[in-house]
Amino acid sequence: MEISCDRLSLSKIKTELKSLAFYRDLLAELLTTFFLTLSALSLGMTWGDKPYTGTVEQVGIGMMCTVCALAWSLGEFGGIHMNPSVTLALVLLSEITPSRALIYLVIQCIAAMAGTKFIQVVLPPLVTDHLKPTMLHPDVAEWQGFLIEGWLTFHLIFTVLGATDEKRKRDGYCIPPLIIAMTVATCIGCGFVSTGSSMNPAMTFGAAVVTDIWDNHWLYWVGPLSGSFLATLLYKFVFDILDNSNEKTC
Amino acid sequence: MEISCDRLSLSKIKTELKSLAFYRDLLAELLTTFFLTLSALSLGMTWGDKPYTGTVEQVGIGMMCTVCALAWSLGEFGGIHMNPSVTLALVLLSEITPSRALIYLVIQCIAAMAGTKFIQVVLPPLVTDHLKPTMLHPDVAEWQGFLIEGWLTFHLIFTVLGATDEKRKRDGYCIPPLIIAMTVATCIGCGFVSTGSSMNPAMTFGAAVVTDIWDNHWLYWVGPLSGSFLATLLYKFVFDILDNSNEKTC
Amino acid sequence: MEISCDRLSLSKIKTELKSLAFYRDLLAELLTTFFLTLSALSLGMTWGDKPYTGTVEQVGIGMMCTVCALAWSLGEFGGIHMNPSVTLALVLLSEITPSRALIYLVIQCIAAMAGTKFIQVVLPPLVTDHLKPTMLHPDVAEWQGFLIEGWLTFHLIFTVLGATDEKRKRDGYCIPPLIIAMTVATCIGCGFVSTGSSMNPAMTFGAAVVTDIWDNHWLYWVGPLSGSFLATLLYKFVFDILDNSNEKTC
Amino acid sequence: MEISCDRLSLSKIKTELKSLAFYRDLLAELLTTFFLTLSALSLGMTWGDKPYTGTVEQVGIGMMCTVCALAWSLGEFGGIHMNPSVTLALVLLSEITPSRALIYLVIQCIAAMAGTKFIQVVLPPLVTDHLKPTMLHPDVAEWQGFLIEGWLTFHLIFTVLGATDEKRKRDGYCIPPLIIAMTVATCIGCGFVSTGSSMNPAMTFGAAVVTDIWDNHWLYWVGPLSGSFLATLLYKFVFDILDNSNEKTC
Repeated sequence: MEISCDRLSLSKIKTELKSLAFYRDLLAELLTTFFLTLSALSLGMTWGDKPYTGTVEQVGIGMMCTVCALAWSLGEFGGIHMNPSVTLALVLLSEITPSRALIYLVIQCIAAMAGTKFIQVVLPPLVTDHLKPTMLHPDVAEWQGFLIEGWLTFHLIFTVLGATDEKRKRDGYCIPPLIIAMTVATCIGCGFVSTGSSMNPAMTFGAAVVTDIWDNHWLYWVGPLSGSFLATLLYKFVFDILDNSNEKTC
Repeated sequence: MEISCDRLSLSKIKTELKSLAFYRDLLAELLTTFFLTLSALSLGMTWGDKPYTGTVEQVGIGMMCTVCALAWSLGEFGGIHMNPSVTLALVLLSEITPSRALIYLVIQCIAAMAGTKFIQVVLPPLVTDHLKPTMLHPDVAEWQGFLIEGWLTFHLIFTVLGATDEKRKRDGYCIPPLIIAMTVATCIGCGFVSTGSSMNPAMTFGAAVVTDIWDNHWLYWVGPLSGSFLATLLYKFVFDILDNSNEKTC
Repeated sequence: MEISCDRLSLSKIKTELKSLAFYRDLLAELLTTFFLTLSALSLGMTWGDKPYTGTVEQVGIGMMCTVCALAWSLGEFGGIHMNPSVTLALVLLSEITPSRALIYLVIQCIAAMAGTKFIQVVLPPLVTDHLKPTMLHPDVAEWQGFLIEGWLTFHLIFTVLGATDEKRKRDGYCIPPLIIAMTVATCIGCGFVSTGSSMNPAMTFGAAVVTDIWDNHWLYWVGPLSGSFLATLLYKFVFDILDNSNEKTC
Repeated sequence: MEISCDRLSLSKIKTELKSLAFYRDLLAELLTTFFLTLSALSLGMTWGDKPYTGTVEQVGIGMMCTVCALAWSLGEFGGIHMNPSVTLALVLLSEITPSRALIYLVIQCIAAMAGTKFIQVVLPPLVTDHLKPTMLHPDVAEWQGFLIEGWLTFHLIFTVLGATDEKRKRDGYCIPPLIIAMTVATCIGCGFVSTGSSMNPAMTFGAAVVTDIWDNHWLYWVGPLSGSFLATLLYKFVFDILDNSNEKTC
């Protein structure tokens, strides 16, 4: 979830495939996305006999803590995106190569599938019978869900780009992973009941494959990726420019 | 929510109107206030069939995260006030010009209206039927509500000024947006049931326009702005002076 | 709640009484303790018709945010103790003079009384009828309550001293107010139902005066102050010594 | 919970036993583990007549605050492990000697027993009748509980090692105790209902001794220690190597 320092041209991909660091980055991405999926699924579980489990606050706070801790602890190893929406933003900003982005996407999906499977194995049927990918609330229309996922992911990616922009870094700007994680908490609070606050196509896809539930699946790809696309374009063409005029008036 | 570095005299407003940076600042203010409104309205929604939604904790924690993340990520672009109470304090301290403050006020109100409308569109009638601006609890008298909004906004603005005072900044003082956001969380916890903890006239106004509910509307302007006015005066004339005598005894 | 930099000998108290900074410090202590009391009382209010108000989590998180924001924003003005237990620890460590400590104690009690009165005025009888100082759970014996308040305040003051020790400060040690506030949150969670987690004799005293409820009042003075006393002694004679042998083995 | 700076060879243990600093470290470990145990047990208490006590969120947030505050305040005194899983990881990385690790283990178990006993004394039978060590949910099989404790502790230790790795420290990497504590909060949210989210054999052992409840006790040793073992090996042999190839591609 942190802007990687890789700025490889496409022609360098062959060199990269031979380096040890590249595979370590992939392993870091795989592990962190796997643990993120475990947290996302287990935090939201409702245990029949235990009230106050799986509340929105619990999922929001728990995901904030996971995202922050994983991105902070292992950020050097390839950036720790854990989410195709983040990967898309970084490709659009030429922070990573398209080929690296594709590999990340595959790894994120595999990690999410493995994470969902792990939860299905270690928890009893009492709760895993209710295991499902993020889904629309029955009263929310598909186009509304699309707009909600777009809004939440726009909000998330816009904050990601602002918080990690090296050009604008000052003293107080030293803890981007925490800022990003706080946005995750807000967005989960805002959309958990209506769409499940996915913002992450890989995580929804992983759970959909394992549980074979594909309701409204398209919107969990198109919504987040559209939001990420728009946020990145707006950031790139409007807020990424710290030109002289800004220096002067400020 | 961060003290902007603009210290423009009124005569400079024409130059400002021609600069690109000025419009970028306005766009940043518009976007952040829009997202703040989306969070404020959706975090507090109660979904009929889902217990534990819209709790005070959820609104408090969610708003804390939003305020911190938005102010931190985009603070350079005009300060990110998102609230006329903050704008008032900065005018009184001559941190921004009155003309800039007026433009900010208009933009904050527009963003809040747009945000409320967006929520009305993307969420189902099940919840949007209950959409309303911050309102008084039926047992709370108008003058009590006025005092409560005044207290909460005084607390908020007093902390804003203390946390962002460049003259007193030291090592540990590097994260003003987080401190401000923590005060938002507290104030929401303190006044959510009695007045809705607005502290933000623009946000209440935006929701009032869209829902056409104007109960006790005056106090959501007079309360917060009075609190901000008093806190700023007190800060300016008592705590803003780091004179030699302070250096000596300390 | 922050170790003040004042190291005045008793003979300097006359000079101090003539300085402007001294009265500003007192005003800062009065204001912050007043706002702390408002938060403490209003966060824990149960509103008959609103479920999920006044939960332990809400009080814990809200108080954490208030303590951190107030101590951070205004820490330079006399340290912002807001609690006689903190003032006692700083007297024992000779960080402040006994005469200054006594003045602080009086100011803390006045602020707590004023805060309780303010809450009684601005909230409706529906909730203020239940206004009371921190009290023992009926199943908890007095000596148990004494031990609980002692434990919680020991824990709090021990962390305060560790977090603010200038001699041991390193890079990661830059945000003592947050650390202290996190301990407040924990301690409220640990003891809220059994003793009300006061840890603060002034706040309990203020509410007792206004509501005229004095049940087990002694233990809210003796418990916290004993805990603070023990924690300070232990810290001073064991953990305050960073001698050469420590440097060597480490 | 912080990587200690001790890198003593086994032959130095005799010197260490003679140093004052060594016994101070042990006292710090004893005190912090004792307070951690008090928090863990009292935060999760359900008080019959008080709804909303002992919720998973409360335990998660409270433990996060305790772990962060204790590790931050006293980290210099021997590292403040408070958990045999952390001690195991540091032995495997040769950060501490095996003899020191054994002494830590004994101290952690003693502190957990003392903490459990203290809670039994200061709280009324209403709640202490339900005092018990972390236990399996009746629907969770033993091998599942083993996997869950392994997963949670792997996640925790992996983050601990990433967050405290001095070789990879940068500007934003200055607050490891907070990152570690956030992982504790997540893991408690993920596994509280299924296994009690122990991750800490000493704490479970202490409560088991005092309450004489030994159900599935083995898995609270083997699960966490296996998770810690695997995480440390993976970190040591894959992520601890910052070789030149990494510098090049990054």
